[in-house]
Amino acid sequence: MTRPLILHEDRLFPADTATRAIARRLYAEVKGLPIISPHGHTDPAWFADNAPFSNATELLLAPDHYLYRMLYSQGVPLESLGVPSRAGRSSADPREAFRTFAAHWKLFRGTPSSLWLTHVFVEVFGLGVALSPETADLYFDTINEKLATAAFRPRALFERFNIEVLATTESPSDSLKHHMAIRESGWAGQVITAYRPDPVVDPEHEEFAPSLELFALLSGKDVTTWRGYLEAHRIRRAAFKEAGATSTDHGHPTARTADLTDAEAEALFQVIVSGNATPEQAELFRAQMLTEMAKMSLDDGLVMQIHPGSFRNHNAALHARFGRDKGADIPTSTEYVRALKPLLDRLGNERELRIILFTLDESAYARELAPLAGHYPVLKLGPAWWFHDSPEGMRRFREQTTETAGFYNTVGFNDDTRAFLSIPARHDVARRVDAGFLARLVAEHRLGEDEARELIVDLAYNLPRQAYRLDRSQSEKIARSA
Amino acid sequence: MTRPLILHEDRLFPADTATRAIARRLYAEVKGLPIISPHGHTDPAWFADNAPFSNATELLLAPDHYLYRMLYSQGVPLESLGVPSRAGRSSADPREAFRTFAAHWKLFRGTPSSLWLTHVFVEVFGLGVALSPETADLYFDTINEKLATAAFRPRALFERFNIEVLATTESPSDSLKHHMAIRESGWAGQVITAYRPDPVVDPEHEEFAPSLELFALLSGKDVTTWRGYLEAHRIRRAAFKEAGATSTDHGHPTARTADLTDAEAEALFQVIVSGNATPEQAELFRAQMLTEMAKMSLDDGLVMQIHPGSFRNHNAALHARFGRDKGADIPTSTEYVRALKPLLDRLGNERELRIILFTLDESAYARELAPLAGHYPVLKLGPAWWFHDSPEGMRRFREQTTETAGFYNTVGFNDDTRAFLSIPARHDVARRVDAGFLARLVAEHRLGEDEARELIVDLAYNLPRQAYRLDRSQSEKIARSA
Amino acid sequence: MTRPLILHEDRLFPADTATRAIARRLYAEVKGLPIISPHGHTDPAWFADNAPFSNATELLLAPDHYLYRMLYSQGVPLESLGVPSRAGRSSADPREAFRTFAAHWKLFRGTPSSLWLTHVFVEVFGLGVALSPETADLYFDTINEKLATAAFRPRALFERFNIEVLATTESPSDSLKHHMAIRESGWAGQVITAYRPDPVVDPEHEEFAPSLELFALLSGKDVTTWRGYLEAHRIRRAAFKEAGATSTDHGHPTARTADLTDAEAEALFQVIVSGNATPEQAELFRAQMLTEMAKMSLDDGLVMQIHPGSFRNHNAALHARFGRDKGADIPTSTEYVRALKPLLDRLGNERELRIILFTLDESAYARELAPLAGHYPVLKLGPAWWFHDSPEGMRRFREQTTETAGFYNTVGFNDDTRAFLSIPARHDVARRVDAGFLARLVAEHRLGEDEARELIVDLAYNLPRQAYRLDRSQSEKIARSA
Repeated sequence: MTRPLILHEDRLFPADTATRAIARRLYAEVKGLPIISPHGHTDPAWFADNAPFSNATELLLAPDHYLYRMLYSQGVPLESLGVPSRAGRSSADPREAFRTFAAHWKLFRGTPSSLWLTHVFVEVFGLGVALSPETADLYFDTINEKLATAAFRPRALFERFNIEVLATTESPSDSLKHHMAIRESGWAGQVITAYRPDPVVDPEHEEFAPSLELFALLSGKDVTTWRGYLEAHRIRRAAFKEAGATSTDHGHPTARTADLTDAEAEALFQVIVSGNATPEQAELFRAQMLTEMAKMSLDDGLVMQIHPGSFRNHNAALHARFGRDKGADIPTSTEYVRALKPLLDRLGNERELRIILFTLDESAYARELAPLAGHYPVLKLGPAWWFHDSPEGMRRFREQTTETAGFYNTVGFNDDTRAFLSIPARHDVARRVDAGFLARLVAEHRLGEDEARELIVDLAYNLPRQAYRLDRSQSEKIARSA
Repeated sequence: MTRPLILHEDRLFPADTATRAIARRLYAEVKGLPIISPHGHTDPAWFADNAPFSNATELLLAPDHYLYRMLYSQGVPLESLGVPSRAGRSSADPREAFRTFAAHWKLFRGTPSSLWLTHVFVEVFGLGVALSPETADLYFDTINEKLATAAFRPRALFERFNIEVLATTESPSDSLKHHMAIRESGWAGQVITAYRPDPVVDPEHEEFAPSLELFALLSGKDVTTWRGYLEAHRIRRAAFKEAGATSTDHGHPTARTADLTDAEAEALFQVIVSGNATPEQAELFRAQMLTEMAKMSLDDGLVMQIHPGSFRNHNAALHARFGRDKGADIPTSTEYVRALKPLLDRLGNERELRIILFTLDESAYARELAPLAGHYPVLKLGPAWWFHDSPEGMRRFREQTTETAGFYNTVGFNDDTRAFLSIPARHDVARRVDAGFLARLVAEHRLGEDEARELIVDLAYNLPRQAYRLDRSQSEKIARSA
Repeated sequence: MTRPLILHEDRLFPADTATRAIARRLYAEVKGLPIISPHGHTDPAWFADNAPFSNATELLLAPDHYLYRMLYSQGVPLESLGVPSRAGRSSADPREAFRTFAAHWKLFRGTPSSLWLTHVFVEVFGLGVALSPETADLYFDTINEKLATAAFRPRALFERFNIEVLATTESPSDSLKHHMAIRESGWAGQVITAYRPDPVVDPEHEEFAPSLELFALLSGKDVTTWRGYLEAHRIRRAAFKEAGATSTDHGHPTARTADLTDAEAEALFQVIVSGNATPEQAELFRAQMLTEMAKMSLDDGLVMQIHPGSFRNHNAALHARFGRDKGADIPTSTEYVRALKPLLDRLGNERELRIILFTLDESAYARELAPLAGHYPVLKLGPAWWFHDSPEGMRRFREQTTETAGFYNTVGFNDDTRAFLSIPARHDVARRVDAGFLARLVAEHRLGEDEARELIVDLAYNLPRQAYRLDRSQSEKIARSA
């Protein structure tokens, strides 16, 4: 027996009748707004090549660590799910992998993955029965058939999804060829890049040495000197900006910053490039580089994002066999107040600099992040991130930051995803949760409904455009083309 | 004037009408299910001897640190409450002690103790008026009269409570004679033990030296050598398993683990048995022993529970006079990500090993524990523990773990109590809070009601049986007796 | 177009109809009760001199760091808001400053400042239209006109606000002349002081050296010897007590305490007065002084308040130009369990000593503070503080402390404000949030409504009087004057 698959129009709204009615009205204001996606990890090659996606398993399951980590936690081997390893592509049969996934679908009850995928199944693929072992083949065949059609090519979906702008992230050692190809193709879709220098900034990154070589090649600088290395950053940042970038992104183990003298920084850099840095020296170098990047942001206007606090590749055996980003990154306790002080002492009061802070440690929301963002002109708060990109996580974010930092020191939603098809679902969840939060404030007479109407549009559309300087970037582009 | 004592049938359900209606339906699915109590601290002698309980004070007040700690915080001396000290039994008159308790009953407003005791008063003793100074004697007399009857003997209550299985915890230096007596008595009640080796694993435990001696005696091994000490654990674990144990339990100050070489471990052990260990060596030894216990669990199948983060006996003066477990244990900030890595690097991907993690530090739920349990095959999350075994605590547990770890990486409820009469009340609270949480998900269209119906039975009955391998243990028993 | 300004009678009550009805009934019990304000930072000169307040900007905006920090975070210079700097009074035109504030009013949506000021605008000044750029001048003129009238002088407002007792905080080096002037004036308003020795206890306080000099002068003791220094404290504490003080207050970076021998303390003190203390020695001295203050409290009966965990003056450039208390104090992670142990080992079981703990680190509520206060006779929990003095912050406080510490180990509300006009608003918010919290417990059948009625009066009135010994202090005063 199969269950119908339902995407209820009131999903995620508070149950209380009066509050729900307000939430419905607020959501109606933003339901149809274009999607602003200023931070994510989709593959620009999709939009450059516009080739059809292969099949349900390779599109939906194998690249989504939210999904396979949960199955892995219950004893399902990654090999059986089509997840590629260091040895290359998985030898699993995609249909069998999808069946395995369907057989474990109940594991996702109560999770955001369940919400997102249900949205994808209903809205993108028009499925009407719930996923189960009985319907696994129906799903697999239906999805594959649709993916083979023109309407499901990346650019067609981008347009159908009503995406106004989509940012990807690339390393400074990336040639940006896909972004150039998108531009040169004449396609109107706005796919931009973001400068993610971790591979050339983190001496403990496994790609550090080869990335530095490409960095030298692409910048034409001798990156083994401190001066040349910094200049290479300036050159690549300019190239990224030319390719549409309005932001940089920094994924560090901690939020630590430093403000060394030039001589100290130069000496430290020599140790780093020698390959003999201790863990403490590596950490200090990352810390110093956050301040260097902030100084460059003040010059070139790129918005700086700091994503700290993930213990990457925690599962040593899995990392050895499957490589990075396999669902074994675990958040850690993250301190901001002392960590950011060197950078803030140097640049915290600059009105033209913007730094967006994220966290995987929710205990910092009310204690550290909202008080910091509610004071320093350079700081704004990124949305609930990663494991906290969920209805309860978003609710805690608003409940714990709004009273101290307000709404206007936050930057709207980031989907932060490589799961392209889930982007509309993720933005829809965020809009619904914000509608519900605002509706509660209205129902409790802490906010006027007219104010809430203005706020929800700001949260869904205006704030991300302003915070990431997407409005400015468009004006500049218009100015340039005039 | 006396107030009526009411146990409302809708207690703990959300107030919203539609959500409450769903909660009622879900709760009805599990209200009558047998109790699975896989972790607790009742005294097996009760069920071995089946002697009547003495009186209301000695049964309900004197052993319950939730109760007397609250009174102590308001200036009531423990001596006046019948709490035994190092000098022996209290000289307090039980009736006077109960009157003192009744006079302070309002201190428990809004606490789980109030919920639990109200359930005991109404359901177990049939009382119909609220506790107050005026009714203290009525309570004391009514309870004592009933306790003297056959229907209130331990085994009769066990059966009336519909307990399917009840686990106690014993030290390796316990002879298990009560458990043997229960078995030999022919009584059908399933009371099993659990292996709690803290007294022979923690060099800072005040009973360490005498416990080691008994450990040697009961195992027949020379426990002053590393090899003999490990072998003694294997022998005692086997004896516990024979007495029904399906799990071990480890109450450590931190979650730290280690994975020393054999030579390092042996050298460390020699320092430990010499009695000259530093605090850091003691901590390292406990850390190493968690990994040793995990290795043995992989061999013998006993489920491993880790209960870290309590600062035991914080009140030095009280500890000197009254001894351990007198309500002065205080939770501390607890780190898991780095602490567990040595053990997880060694055994984290073993599909036959199961480790259940608990915490007294709720900030770890969403940050560390749910991400760990939502990835590692060996890990599952124990329920909200101790101070968090409460309606708000359970709600936070579900809200902060479900979205990342799902429901199926949790293990259902533990009552963890020495207050035997409160066991049905505690399980009832857990079932009601889970019904309320699931009802909210259903009302917000995040879960189908059919899914919630399946889930609540899993949470109340199937998950604890599976997680603690109680189903497996019964199959083995059936196999053995065949 | 101007919006009406509405102070809805159901504000802050839960939206659920049944729960709201209970909240209304509970709030009605306390709505009209006198205000007990046992901890705050109003200026006693206001009540001594009873001079009219100057204008809207100097009264409402320039001294309120909750307001100007938010504007500063969005790029508004403090100079333009009338905030005084180290150079003296601001040269900003008060009307222009108020217009700037009005233009940014939407930043406060969803914040407690919005609730408090709306209350002030409606209830104190009778304004009926919302603040906006269009109404800025109307506001400025209306407020200034009223401030010039007799009904808006400090004493008249104090009486209109129904304040039964208001505590200010002064340094031991304060002459208390304003408090003496209030007494001698014959005015019946009860304005008392509190002993805040930070400037003479914290070697890192920028006023440490000059404060010590005044301390010596006012006490008549040689405060360069350990014995003389302690004696000076005893003398000033007695003077404060004579001026009505019932409490002391300690704002330390951490909760650390120490219990040194006399010889150790004396040696440490000599380093401190030499001006050569290391940061660690400064921290140890503050730690020791908490224990010294506790010992004196045991002698003289002053209730001790500990406010730890603020990183003061985090913004170095702003501090250099504007001085202390300019909205750049940021909370930090705060540990209590180990930090308080030395003091508690010495004095934790004293029934006549009372210590009220506050926190800026909410993760400590359920983990450390409620378990500590639910055990130690000397400890009670202060209300949600500073950034957490907000509807969501108060709700979290109750949800995370009640189940372990109960209501009776808390002390009611503190407004902790220098914004005199907001005092009724702040107490009203607290009473409403408590009414909503209790109403939920009643609606969920976790508490009888009769119990909730008693509790809400205790929380609003009886507990602060008892906890701060204001009842005792009045009895003593009556005894003295008899």
